[in-house]
Amino acid sequence: MTDTYRRLVLARRPTGNVDPSTLRLEEAERPALAEGEALVEVQYLSIDPTIRTWMNDAPGYLPPIEIDAVVRSGGLGTVVESRNDDYPVGTTVFGMLGWTELAVISADDPATVVPEGIDPLPVLSVFGATGMTAYFGLLDIGQPEEGDTVVVSGAAGATGSVVGQIARIKGAGTVVGIAGSDEKCAWLVDELGFTAAINYRTEDVAARLRELCPKGIDVFFDNVGGDILDAALANLAMKARVVICGAISQYNERVPVGPRNYVSLIFQRARMEGFLILDYLDRFAEGQAQMFEWVLGGQIHHREHVVDGLEHAGDALNMLFTGENTGKVIVKL
Amino acid sequence: MTDTYRRLVLARRPTGNVDPSTLRLEEAERPALAEGEALVEVQYLSIDPTIRTWMNDAPGYLPPIEIDAVVRSGGLGTVVESRNDDYPVGTTVFGMLGWTELAVISADDPATVVPEGIDPLPVLSVFGATGMTAYFGLLDIGQPEEGDTVVVSGAAGATGSVVGQIARIKGAGTVVGIAGSDEKCAWLVDELGFTAAINYRTEDVAARLRELCPKGIDVFFDNVGGDILDAALANLAMKARVVICGAISQYNERVPVGPRNYVSLIFQRARMEGFLILDYLDRFAEGQAQMFEWVLGGQIHHREHVVDGLEHAGDALNMLFTGENTGKVIVKL
Repeated sequence: MTDTYRRLVLARRPTGNVDPSTLRLEEAERPALAEGEALVEVQYLSIDPTIRTWMNDAPGYLPPIEIDAVVRSGGLGTVVESRNDDYPVGTTVFGMLGWTELAVISADDPATVVPEGIDPLPVLSVFGATGMTAYFGLLDIGQPEEGDTVVVSGAAGATGSVVGQIARIKGAGTVVGIAGSDEKCAWLVDELGFTAAINYRTEDVAARLRELCPKGIDVFFDNVGGDILDAALANLAMKARVVICGAISQYNERVPVGPRNYVSLIFQRARMEGFLILDYLDRFAEGQAQMFEWVLGGQIHHREHVVDGLEHAGDALNMLFTGENTGKVIVKL
Repeated sequence: MTDTYRRLVLARRPTGNVDPSTLRLEEAERPALAEGEALVEVQYLSIDPTIRTWMNDAPGYLPPIEIDAVVRSGGLGTVVESRNDDYPVGTTVFGMLGWTELAVISADDPATVVPEGIDPLPVLSVFGATGMTAYFGLLDIGQPEEGDTVVVSGAAGATGSVVGQIARIKGAGTVVGIAGSDEKCAWLVDELGFTAAINYRTEDVAARLRELCPKGIDVFFDNVGGDILDAALANLAMKARVVICGAISQYNERVPVGPRNYVSLIFQRARMEGFLILDYLDRFAEGQAQMFEWVLGGQIHHREHVVDGLEHAGDALNMLFTGENTGKVIVKL
C-alpha cells in the first residue's frame, strides 16, 4: 500500500462529450480514518449515462458534481483499513465510491456489502442498479402484458439488453430492439432472442417500426430520446406505456429537443412516465433473486465491456454516447 | 321551411388559422329521408379546438375531414322531419351534426336526445363533452389529492375554467390558472375562486409558477403545449401527473415543438398522460349528475361566448387560437 492515491476530479463542466480538459487526475494523500470510517480500495467503476447529467450545472435528482470534487460514480472495491465493524478489512463493498483509487465509507456514506464468492462484474451490471433499472422500469412502469409488442431503444446497452430479455420471458408477443450497428442488432436477435432489431444509423426507424409492429407499440422503453422517441410515439398502440428511463441523445445538448409527437399520447390515450431506480432500493432483493434465477437458468445473458485504467474513465463514459460499447461499461482500476 | 339549406365544407386544408379560402359556404337541396332517418335543424354549434386537428391531413383519433365534406362538429338542433321513432319531430338532439343548417341522423349516425326544458347552451358546454372533458380528465387522469397544487393552462377556456373549479371543490390546496389577459385572470380569481392566475402574455410563466407553487405542481392540466407546458414541467412536484388534454399552441404549426423539459418526468418520477373524452361516453351520466349538482348549487360557474351566424363558424374556431374568447365558444345559427 502506498501513501498516495489517484482520483479524477471535475475540472470544468463539459459541453458535449467529456474531453481531457473536463477532468483532472490528482494525486492525494492516503486519508487517515476517523472512528466509524472504513477505507476502500476501488477495483471497478460502474459507468452510467446519469454521471454525465451530474456534470451539468442543472437541477436533477441529485445535486451537480461540484468543481474540483471527485466524479460521483458507483464502484466496487475491498475494505483495506477499517474503524467500522460493519465493514471489516477484506470485505467487498459496492456503493457510490467515485472515480478514485481510495474511498472512505461510513454510516453517512454507506456501501453495500457483497457476499463472498460473487463475481464482481455482474454485481455492477445485471444484479446491480443497471439490471434493477431494467427489471423495475419494465415491469412496474411499463407493465407489459402477455402478447404485447415491446420496443427498447439503446437495446444493446446494459439496461436495454436486459429489458428486451425480461419482456421475452414475460411473454411479450414481439420484442424489437433499436441499436447502432449491425453487429449489435445481430447480437440482440441471435443471442438474446429479440424478435427483430433496427439499426438506427442505417434504417428509417419510424418506417421499420410500422412494419415490425403492425398492431402498434404497447410498451416503449426509452433510453435515448430525440428522433427515436418520436418514431416510437408515431407508432403507439392504444393505451401504450412509454417508459422514460433515459435520454442519452439529449444529455450532451445545450438545448434539448422535446418529443414533437407527444400529442399522440392524446390520440392513443397513452402515458409517458419517468422513474429512478433509487426509489426501488427496498425492493432490490426481490429483483435480484429473480435475476439470479434467470441468469443461472440461462434465460438472461449479459455482457460487460471492461476498460482498463482510472485515467480512461472519461473515455469510457463517452462510449455510452458514441455507442462504442455493447453491454455494461465498467472501468477496471 | 325552405327547400334549400346552407352548409360549410372544407375547400382546402388550412395552414395556420382558418382563412376564408379554407371553407366554402354551399347551398344544397333539402335531403329526402330514407327509412330510419331523421332531419335536424341545427341551432347551435359547439366550437372546439379538436375541429382544427381534423382539418389537417394527419393521423388522429378520427379520420381527417375530407375535402368538400361538411366540417365535422358537435351541434344541437331540433328534429323537423322523421322516419325514425327514436327521434320524433320536435325533439332536441345533440350530436356530430356538422357546420350545416340541416343534418340527417339515423342509427348509424346517432344523436343524443336532450330532455325537454334544458337550456341548450350548457348542454354544449358544462354538461356536454367540454364539461365532461374537464371532469374525467382531471379526476380520472390527474387524480388530484386533498391539498395538492393544481395548475391549468388555457384556464379561461371552456374546459380549463371548469377544471380549476372542480379542483377547488375537490380540496386542492392551490389552484393556479394560466390565461392570456388580465381580464381573464381577474375572472378566474374573483369569480371562479382560483387561488391565483398568470397572464402568459405579460408574465414569466416559469418564474411565477416557481413562486406560486413552492412545493411544485402535483397536477398540471394542459390544453396548450409549447412553452407553457415546458414551464410547468420545470416545476413539477414528485410523482406529478401531467394531463395532456390538448395542445392548442401546436395545432396550427407545420412542425410542432415537443416539450424539451420532458426529462423532468424522470427526475420527478412523474407521468404525462393523454385521454379522449370519447372513451368516457358510458360514464357521462355520472359526470353530468355531479355537474348538475355543482352548477345548481352555485359551486361551478360557466360562461358561453356566442357568435352569430353559420358563416362565422371559421372565425369562431380561430378565436380559440387567438384567445379572444372567455368560456365556451358557440355558434348560433
